[in-house]
Amino acid sequence: MMLKKIGFIGLGIMGKPMAKNLIKAGYSLVVYDIFDAAVEELNAAGAETASSPKDVAEKCETIITMLPNGPQVKEVVTGAGGILEASVIGRIVIDMSSISPIVSKEMYDECKKKGIRFMDAPVSGGEPKAKDGTLAIMVGCDEDDFEQNVSLLKCMGSSVVRTGEIGSGNVTKLANQIIVALNIAAVSEAFTLATKAGVDPQCVFDAIKGGLAGSTVMNAKIPMILERNFNPGFKIDLHIKDLANALDTAHSIGVPVPLTSVIMEIMQALRVDGKGQNDHGSVVQFYEKLAQVEVKS
Amino acid sequence: MMLKKIGFIGLGIMGKPMAKNLIKAGYSLVVYDIFDAAVEELNAAGAETASSPKDVAEKCETIITMLPNGPQVKEVVTGAGGILEASVIGRIVIDMSSISPIVSKEMYDECKKKGIRFMDAPVSGGEPKAKDGTLAIMVGCDEDDFEQNVSLLKCMGSSVVRTGEIGSGNVTKLANQIIVALNIAAVSEAFTLATKAGVDPQCVFDAIKGGLAGSTVMNAKIPMILERNFNPGFKIDLHIKDLANALDTAHSIGVPVPLTSVIMEIMQALRVDGKGQNDHGSVVQFYEKLAQVEVKS
Repeated sequence: MMLKKIGFIGLGIMGKPMAKNLIKAGYSLVVYDIFDAAVEELNAAGAETASSPKDVAEKCETIITMLPNGPQVKEVVTGAGGILEASVIGRIVIDMSSISPIVSKEMYDECKKKGIRFMDAPVSGGEPKAKDGTLAIMVGCDEDDFEQNVSLLKCMGSSVVRTGEIGSGNVTKLANQIIVALNIAAVSEAFTLATKAGVDPQCVFDAIKGGLAGSTVMNAKIPMILERNFNPGFKIDLHIKDLANALDTAHSIGVPVPLTSVIMEIMQALRVDGKGQNDHGSVVQFYEKLAQVEVKS
Repeated sequence: MMLKKIGFIGLGIMGKPMAKNLIKAGYSLVVYDIFDAAVEELNAAGAETASSPKDVAEKCETIITMLPNGPQVKEVVTGAGGILEASVIGRIVIDMSSISPIVSKEMYDECKKKGIRFMDAPVSGGEPKAKDGTLAIMVGCDEDDFEQNVSLLKCMGSSVVRTGEIGSGNVTKLANQIIVALNIAAVSEAFTLATKAGVDPQCVFDAIKGGLAGSTVMNAKIPMILERNFNPGFKIDLHIKDLANALDTAHSIGVPVPLTSVIMEIMQALRVDGKGQNDHGSVVQFYEKLAQVEVKS
């Protein structure tokens, strides 16, 4: 069965496998990206191509965007050759990028003026889960739009949760990224203390992982840290992008976030130290350097 | 079967149920506490009583201590009427208090001079697990002492892990307490942001708990926070004690702990605000006040 035609803009590390999963599920795709190689790969997989976001919007009623950050989403929606230049109404834009919820709301308002709906549906889980179609998708939109699009989203994610109105998906994603960053810092600070105190970190892990200190971050990152494996995973540079959006959003609505500001500075220090492309588990290396802990690497 | 005689010093909220579990397991107990009521209760449960820690040490080869902090352990071991005043050798002191590992090592050295062994074996899990005999026990001592005492410890805990030599139990406990405090702060900061942004915290919880942000702290504390239940559990005042020991220990061995210092100040602010007897989940109330978030209570 051929399902409805879907536009897909943004074929990067995440977007490409997500788009392929839609083709696998039987959707007909019209794709656009500024990089030709990604477009050609999707074309070979059966997707039609478009010459601009405007062109995508003219060809498809539903348009998914998966872009690096807010400025790119603004450009694709409101820029020259953007979605809003198409002479169409009744379209829906599903923005799956991780951006500031402030930008999500701006885009919602801009689209509404032109009779186009906009929802935010950022994901978590990274490239492996994008490939498997098992992302966690956090969706901000009204209930009708959720009902109409949930089956489409389920081709890309195993958990699709409506978190509230427009922007709530990205607020939830920022909450997620704050917690992940701080939980990594927590285990890094604690394990560096234990290591310099001469206690085997594997023993500490075994002794505490089953109790109140236990976390998915501890289970995922401590084994990597013990193996000195800092291959991403999720890069420091990307986490910095999310924390910048978190700080902007928090300050714009009047929420002081003292710990988020500290972990932001720690990640900035790691970037200065040439570790921006490392996995965010590399936060432990900030502490090891600070404490001059010798670790075999 | 009547097992060997065990001395038990410190019958507080934790010590009392732990001592009772030893009686249930068939051990003969000699108890001491500065509060008569606790001693009488154990006496009624079949324990012999002693007039001082010295008296306990004269009557028992194995002496468990479960005291509030380092100064009390020092007093009981090296003070007037203390364990080291007993004219005995070959005794072993198992200190199950949560104290600074620096004090654990000092006590080990003081005891060694008198031919007495000392091990640190702090616990986590709180009063409910003390009652059930399902504490997590982190043990610092040599392998022989561990082998000789592990069956005794298993009457009080479901997880008994040797973490290394003397002091390593308390280092592990401090690592645990740092992580727990920071994981609570992480969810508090993130959920206060979401709440003030107008997103239902229950939706945020549902959307993120299964991913990398998931933690035992989130699963335990978010439902309490949503119910505005700040009954301890584990009190802010006690967590402050542990963080003070963590900061002391970290600084004494040259480990800067920037995030631990911030969560310490947050808990100090809560204590100033009259919330020292609240559960440590009350950290969210620091953020709510800071952000002037209105929450039904």
